Amino acid sequence: MAKPTGKRRILIIHGPNLNLLGNREKDIYGSLTLDQINQRIRKAAARHKAQVEIFQSNIEGELVEKIQKAYGKFDAIIINPAAYTHTSVAIRDAILAVGIPTIEVHLSNVYKREDFRKLSLISDIVEGKIVGLGLNSYLLAIEAVIDLFNKREKLSPKTP
Amino acid sequence: MAKPTGKRRILIIHGPNLNLLGNREKDIYGSLTLDQINQRIRKAAARHKAQVEIFQSNIEGELVEKIQKAYGKFDAIIINPAAYTHTSVAIRDAILAVGIPTIEVHLSNVYKREDFRKLSLISDIVEGKIVGLGLNSYLLAIEAVIDLFNKREKLSPKTP
Amino acid sequence: MAKPTGKRRILIIHGPNLNLLGNREKDIYGSLTLDQINQRIRKAAARHKAQVEIFQSNIEGELVEKIQKAYGKFDAIIINPAAYTHTSVAIRDAILAVGIPTIEVHLSNVYKREDFRKLSLISDIVEGKIVGLGLNSYLLAIEAVIDLFNKREKLSPKTP
Amino acid sequence: MAKPTGKRRILIIHGPNLNLLGNREKDIYGSLTLDQINQRIRKAAARHKAQVEIFQSNIEGELVEKIQKAYGKFDAIIINPAAYTHTSVAIRDAILAVGIPTIEVHLSNVYKREDFRKLSLISDIVEGKIVGLGLNSYLLAIEAVIDLFNKREKLSPKTP
Amino acid sequence: MAKPTGKRRILIIHGPNLNLLGNREKDIYGSLTLDQINQRIRKAAARHKAQVEIFQSNIEGELVEKIQKAYGKFDAIIINPAAYTHTSVAIRDAILAVGIPTIEVHLSNVYKREDFRKLSLISDIVEGKIVGLGLNSYLLAIEAVIDLFNKREKLSPKTP
Amino acid sequence: MAKPTGKRRILIIHGPNLNLLGNREKDIYGSLTLDQINQRIRKAAARHKAQVEIFQSNIEGELVEKIQKAYGKFDAIIINPAAYTHTSVAIRDAILAVGIPTIEVHLSNVYKREDFRKLSLISDIVEGKIVGLGLNSYLLAIEAVIDLFNKREKLSPKTP
Amino acid sequence: MAKPTGKRRILIIHGPNLNLLGNREKDIYGSLTLDQINQRIRKAAARHKAQVEIFQSNIEGELVEKIQKAYGKFDAIIINPAAYTHTSVAIRDAILAVGIPTIEVHLSNVYKREDFRKLSLISDIVEGKIVGLGLNSYLLAIEAVIDLFNKREKLSPKTP
Amino acid sequence: MAKPTGKRRILIIHGPNLNLLGNREKDIYGSLTLDQINQRIRKAAARHKAQVEIFQSNIEGELVEKIQKAYGKFDAIIINPAAYTHTSVAIRDAILAVGIPTIEVHLSNVYKREDFRKLSLISDIVEGKIVGLGLNSYLLAIEAVIDLFNKREKLSPKTP
Amino acid sequence: MAKPTGKRRILIIHGPNLNLLGNREKDIYGSLTLDQINQRIRKAAARHKAQVEIFQSNIEGELVEKIQKAYGKFDAIIINPAAYTHTSVAIRDAILAVGIPTIEVHLSNVYKREDFRKLSLISDIVEGKIVGLGLNSYLLAIEAVIDLFNKREKLSPKTP
Amino acid sequence: MAKPTGKRRILIIHGPNLNLLGNREKDIYGSLTLDQINQRIRKAAARHKAQVEIFQSNIEGELVEKIQKAYGKFDAIIINPAAYTHTSVAIRDAILAVGIPTIEVHLSNVYKREDFRKLSLISDIVEGKIVGLGLNSYLLAIEAVIDLFNKREKLSPKTP
Amino acid sequence: MAKPTGKRRILIIHGPNLNLLGNREKDIYGSLTLDQINQRIRKAAARHKAQVEIFQSNIEGELVEKIQKAYGKFDAIIINPAAYTHTSVAIRDAILAVGIPTIEVHLSNVYKREDFRKLSLISDIVEGKIVGLGLNSYLLAIEAVIDLFNKREKLSPKTP
Amino acid sequence: MAKPTGKRRILIIHGPNLNLLGNREKDIYGSLTLDQINQRIRKAAARHKAQVEIFQSNIEGELVEKIQKAYGKFDAIIINPAAYTHTSVAIRDAILAVGIPTIEVHLSNVYKREDFRKLSLISDIVEGKIVGLGLNSYLLAIEAVIDLFNKREKLSPKTP
Repeated sequence: MAKPTGKRRILIIHGPNLNLLGNREKDIYGSLTLDQINQRIRKAAARHKAQVEIFQSNIEGELVEKIQKAYGKFDAIIINPAAYTHTSVAIRDAILAVGIPTIEVHLSNVYKREDFRKLSLISDIVEGKIVGLGLNSYLLAIEAVIDLFNKREKLSPKTP
Repeated sequence: MAKPTGKRRILIIHGPNLNLLGNREKDIYGSLTLDQINQRIRKAAARHKAQVEIFQSNIEGELVEKIQKAYGKFDAIIINPAAYTHTSVAIRDAILAVGIPTIEVHLSNVYKREDFRKLSLISDIVEGKIVGLGLNSYLLAIEAVIDLFNKREKLSPKTP
Repeated sequence: MAKPTGKRRILIIHGPNLNLLGNREKDIYGSLTLDQINQRIRKAAARHKAQVEIFQSNIEGELVEKIQKAYGKFDAIIINPAAYTHTSVAIRDAILAVGIPTIEVHLSNVYKREDFRKLSLISDIVEGKIVGLGLNSYLLAIEAVIDLFNKREKLSPKTP
Repeated sequence: MAKPTGKRRILIIHGPNLNLLGNREKDIYGSLTLDQINQRIRKAAARHKAQVEIFQSNIEGELVEKIQKAYGKFDAIIINPAAYTHTSVAIRDAILAVGIPTIEVHLSNVYKREDFRKLSLISDIVEGKIVGLGLNSYLLAIEAVIDLFNKREKLSPKTP
Repeated sequence: MAKPTGKRRILIIHGPNLNLLGNREKDIYGSLTLDQINQRIRKAAARHKAQVEIFQSNIEGELVEKIQKAYGKFDAIIINPAAYTHTSVAIRDAILAVGIPTIEVHLSNVYKREDFRKLSLISDIVEGKIVGLGLNSYLLAIEAVIDLFNKREKLSPKTP
Repeated sequence: MAKPTGKRRILIIHGPNLNLLGNREKDIYGSLTLDQINQRIRKAAARHKAQVEIFQSNIEGELVEKIQKAYGKFDAIIINPAAYTHTSVAIRDAILAVGIPTIEVHLSNVYKREDFRKLSLISDIVEGKIVGLGLNSYLLAIEAVIDLFNKREKLSPKTP
Repeated sequence: MAKPTGKRRILIIHGPNLNLLGNREKDIYGSLTLDQINQRIRKAAARHKAQVEIFQSNIEGELVEKIQKAYGKFDAIIINPAAYTHTSVAIRDAILAVGIPTIEVHLSNVYKREDFRKLSLISDIVEGKIVGLGLNSYLLAIEAVIDLFNKREKLSPKTP
Repeated sequence: MAKPTGKRRILIIHGPNLNLLGNREKDIYGSLTLDQINQRIRKAAARHKAQVEIFQSNIEGELVEKIQKAYGKFDAIIINPAAYTHTSVAIRDAILAVGIPTIEVHLSNVYKREDFRKLSLISDIVEGKIVGLGLNSYLLAIEAVIDLFNKREKLSPKTP
Repeated sequence: MAKPTGKRRILIIHGPNLNLLGNREKDIYGSLTLDQINQRIRKAAARHKAQVEIFQSNIEGELVEKIQKAYGKFDAIIINPAAYTHTSVAIRDAILAVGIPTIEVHLSNVYKREDFRKLSLISDIVEGKIVGLGLNSYLLAIEAVIDLFNKREKLSPKTP
Repeated sequence: MAKPTGKRRILIIHGPNLNLLGNREKDIYGSLTLDQINQRIRKAAARHKAQVEIFQSNIEGELVEKIQKAYGKFDAIIINPAAYTHTSVAIRDAILAVGIPTIEVHLSNVYKREDFRKLSLISDIVEGKIVGLGLNSYLLAIEAVIDLFNKREKLSPKTP
Repeated sequence: MAKPTGKRRILIIHGPNLNLLGNREKDIYGSLTLDQINQRIRKAAARHKAQVEIFQSNIEGELVEKIQKAYGKFDAIIINPAAYTHTSVAIRDAILAVGIPTIEVHLSNVYKREDFRKLSLISDIVEGKIVGLGLNSYLLAIEAVIDLFNKREKLSPKTP
Repeated sequence: MAKPTGKRRILIIHGPNLNLLGNREKDIYGSLTLDQINQRIRKAAARHKAQVEIFQSNIEGELVEKIQKAYGKFDAIIINPAAYTHTSVAIRDAILAVGIPTIEVHLSNVYKREDFRKLSLISDIVEGKIVGLGLNSYLLAIEAVIDLFNKREKLSPKTP
């Protein structure tokens, strides 16, 4: 995938097991595959003339590295850390280190599930959090990010 | 305010102290007044041809009663219970009783604040939750609700 | 409703959301409406020649005030504080203040439900507690109250 | 004692130390002896044409076995597990195993006493619970059980 | 009551059940009625040429609204939130919102009572806290508030 | 064993697994058998002209019943509840019911062992507690009981 | 039952309510009766030329005594303490006292059930633990015990 | 310092590190030195014709001994235990032992600081508590103590 | 390694540090190397005509991916998650996602070790769990899995 | 006081506030003064030909130093750390450092009092503990210590 | 990098996100880059004639494997596990497995930050721990390791 | 000891029981006496041309006062609070008050010992912390302090 350029560059990060979406546990996560979700994400970003790169990994350290490399290349991160939401201080530290505005999203309503899913190790360092709305959790996060871009552009409108 | 009719009726509920919005603690809640927020909410609903009623109260029991009366009159609720998020079982019970799909919203990122704000007594009974995005928390909740409406209409498309 | 007089005056208090009884969540609360329950309560009280007043409110403070006003006017209180069972110190303080013998009742078995419903803020200041027997929780509470009256009358039998 | 027969057979179970009732700690448990309480229980059952068997033991395992043997012989159990309320998983498992509708009763208001008495290991598996009303806790439980019988008979009225 | 004017305007707020003062539980709260307490408060305020308004409510939301309306009209708040001390985030949020210097008072020594009374949801956002001194808790709070006024006046002495 | 008579009657109760003493785990409990311990106890009691009965059982309910039957027959109880120290509310209730002055003893220092051994369910209702001194825990408890007898006799010296 | 002799003697202990197996709650415990399970256990032991004695009791103290008497008579214990798993320090102490290698087994997966079933008071003193495999939990435990025997025999092969 | 005499004798106790007041951490504790505070305390006491002795120590045991020696010599204690508020059972025991009415004071609002400062080991045994009002915490405590004296004198007015 | 085919395909997963087996900490984990254990596992599987694949990784995400890929290729999983037992929600989610019957095994008795080893994040979603039996933990798990296969085949015996 | 010599040297340590014994709170601690208690202790020691030194301090560090200096000079310590029982790691460390056999004693039954008195920071490092027996707690501790001496002398009987 | 040889071989391990050092969050971690830190480490090691290898990874499992491979190749490990300090049992197990003396270091003072950073899963198995001294944390750890080497060499001085 | 002068003045503080070093519990604390440690400390300080004063006390309040007096006289503190690490808020407050850069040191690895030793009441207010390295903990702390001095001198190099 070509590197996004310009001022509306969004990095989408999917955490572990999200590559299985649409195949199993459809009552919890819905019947869309990750590819179908990504297609919808790209379409939504395109509609707002935002560039988007999408990344999935099951390995905590690879997610950490992807976030690290976003520094200077992306203007916002939308992350669904999945299982690592509840256990990864390393991902938290990476987000803190790059200082890029981040939105946390979850497909399912984590509050309806096991107790340990109620704790997120990144909620207090992100801009906002969208939970339980399926594919829409991602799409609305894009809207939120675009809104951040718009506000920023209003403040420093012409960087020709 | 006239009662909304039809199949895309949304009740917006603002909890205690939200009537002060835009006047104080702007660094936490932003500088928009509740009226300005409501205006934006109405505009967004109108764009989707949804009817909307907006209600604010500082009294827990009045919020309970507003939710009770929504039964049969509204197709979705968007609620920011503010302080009552953390203390009201009565509001939880009212939402459980009417069984209307509900989205929980918060203007500020409650996870960045006092520990007791991390607990919501309704998160596990709502459809989804949007946190920390200011006015956008409401506007994205309207998008989420409209999406629910669209899905429902697809399933039973023509009820003339 | 006329004020009850005499020595067997019972105040029945229904907490928030009980006005919806019989309409929703029937598997938890049963299919009787609050009116039907009240009718049965009145009939049971009448059978024991006891006077009864029944009050429902969704507002914590109104429940507090009703208890306050019971002082000197009622000889026993039967209260189902519903959601406020778990959150209201104010209702506890009102019962402590008026010092009227009180029975706590619950329609559903609160111990089968969410963890927070296991805590009652009034159990340790009431005479007794009846849980999980539906309408019967109220009716048996009336029997319990009548028994208290009978014992009291035996101790000071003739107050002509 | 002859085995009760027919469809309104109630097993009453008294837990440890209840054989001492009426002799000591009268301010907590009242001045009636267990025999006097049992006499009142029998009278109340007779009034409703219900058969009743009463059992007391200080040994957890004997209480477990009595409950086990109730299977197929009794239609309801009324149990005051006394000290074992707070410590016996074995009694819980026995009630779960026989699946007979059970009412939990306590003479004293356990919520006014030591903290460990607030926990009951059976409350979430019984029909209902009556606490703090002395002898009346048992008598009202009989009323509750009779009510269950009546409802059942209405559903399948004539099994000649 | 006429609105206080000038620069030494104090709002006194009494929480739930304080309207019963002097009638019941005198060993805990003393034998003065709320009217007698208020009279003493007024006298003390008058001695310092401060204007005072006194408000009591049993309804959490009404207390919230009274605090909200104090903005711009009062220079200090003295509040005894009574039962709501331990349960009301809404009152906390109202005090935070108006930003008026506030003193928390309690008639009885809450630390000698039930464990849940040890927690105050406002202690960390008020100027100071006075506990257990009966009527004097209020009167000393007035002294404290006057002292705040005096300090402020010294800093910006002549606002003619 | 003949029933002890007179005014210096002591019941010694050994809890579960103490019948194995001297055979296993000697590093924790010492190498004396229970019989040897009992012999030393009898000798110590005889020296003080006290009558003594000794009882051991592995069954919680039998210990409960032994305590119940002590009422009116013994003037003091010395109990080593062993494993039931940490789990038996029934033994606590029996001691409360008979109201006989009781000393709690333990052979080993329970505070050096598993965490759950730190909790005793009877420590707050006994006269005193002696821990970790092996056989001496019992012998010193006899001294303590004799001292109680002596004090009592001084108060009401001649009951001829 | 004749006492087992020789060097491969196994004591099987079933805790409370296991005598009801196969009759009730079959979805949790399976449909085999205890007799059928015991038959399979005996067959498995015979296949390995091991002697086996099987014991069931609902009384904690009887289980304690059975373990005590195993000393010198059995070379391994397989125990399913059922409800007493979670509450009996006395059984733990008996196993510690006799020092016989012990395997803990459970028919159902206790980790899928109530929270209190997650705690076992003996897990840290047994050789191993087998959970959730129904009848197989016992049969595999026999394999485990036989393996222990084999290893021991290899170390001291010829005790003619 | 001469021993105070008469019936209005007040002992003021300052705990550890308060000797540094006015030199460091002025944003927390204010800019007055301990000498300046003591001067104001003496003036306030004199105004009420009360005798006052002031004591500061950094050593827990010396504070304990000063309280012990107050017995029979002082009619009230005003104590700011500073750091020892949160850790000293010995000071609590000394106050319990002498039984002199005591007021607890704190210069800063301890509830705004570290969590461990929220716990006071003496709050439940003092008459009252004044927190967060700087020098005024002490001065108002003197008012409170004088009020206690006045009340006592009214009850037993002339002990010439 | 060739992909196993047919209906008795078992995936064996070894978690982090198990590659060191037999080299260090032999008192805890035994003296067999992982290769020796694997050889024994293969032999046991062969005896039951089951196909087996064995996988070890120190990287959480690789274990996750191995489980993901088992979907449709294996009929049972035997997993020793080692350190990740206590920390990996991602492995739990992978097992949940593929829905393959799984047995959890541990070489050492984790209940004898550090407290944090008592918590397993997968115990409540596996079929069963075998702990503390060294190599035998794996071998018995194979027996358990074969038993599951046998039962399944009995239900649908001939799928030619 | 002359230094004790020989092999039966006992150091008695009284913690803070025990110098007030017999003057205040007699219902908790009894009416004997510390001098009277010490006299009885000396008499008891003399009877066993043991030398005794007695020390009281209100200062934690002085108690620490007294214990330090006991090394090589005393053969046993009997300590009632009073308030420092619950808060002093320093006293624990001193006892650990000198390694002298120590008995912990308490006059009152600490388990009947505030929760924080249930924790002792030295119970797990002393030989034994005697609680709640008033003066007798000390006297029995002397018996216990003498018994330790006797056992030691039996092992190495003649050190001429 | 060439393998270090000889008896003073040190492995330095940097955990996740430390590769970003010097670029971001300089107020917490300082302004040195990881390269600059490594250069200083190498210089310090050289001064002591110690060989050093330095490794950084963001992947938990790679850190585990690096530690595993240190066995037999390194004489000491200095590790800054960064985020994995608080979450990785796998790293703990690897250190336990290789049994190489290890020093834990942290650049920032973790005790000044989020609560979860106070817990280290390796502190109780390392030789020592150095916290909060920036680059110096590493350099002092090298001194500590050299000191260990020196001591070891003194014990077995000539291994020619 | 003469007061140190100049800009490199270090105060070394040893807490309770450290005066016993080298005599007892050598396996935990090593075999060096405090004098030997102090000699090494002085030599190390001299090597860096730093002045050093060393202080030991067993009395919390004396440690507090030593810290207080360091204000203006010392440029850094190295403190091993020993037992007071875990219990002294007073020492924390003293360090906060004087505001001198402080290093916390411990001879033994406190994380390998009792749970209560894991908590330090000063870790979050010191510059850094060195644990478990014996004498080296102190010597490395001196290096750390010298490094602080060097940095400070670089910033304001010539204060002639």
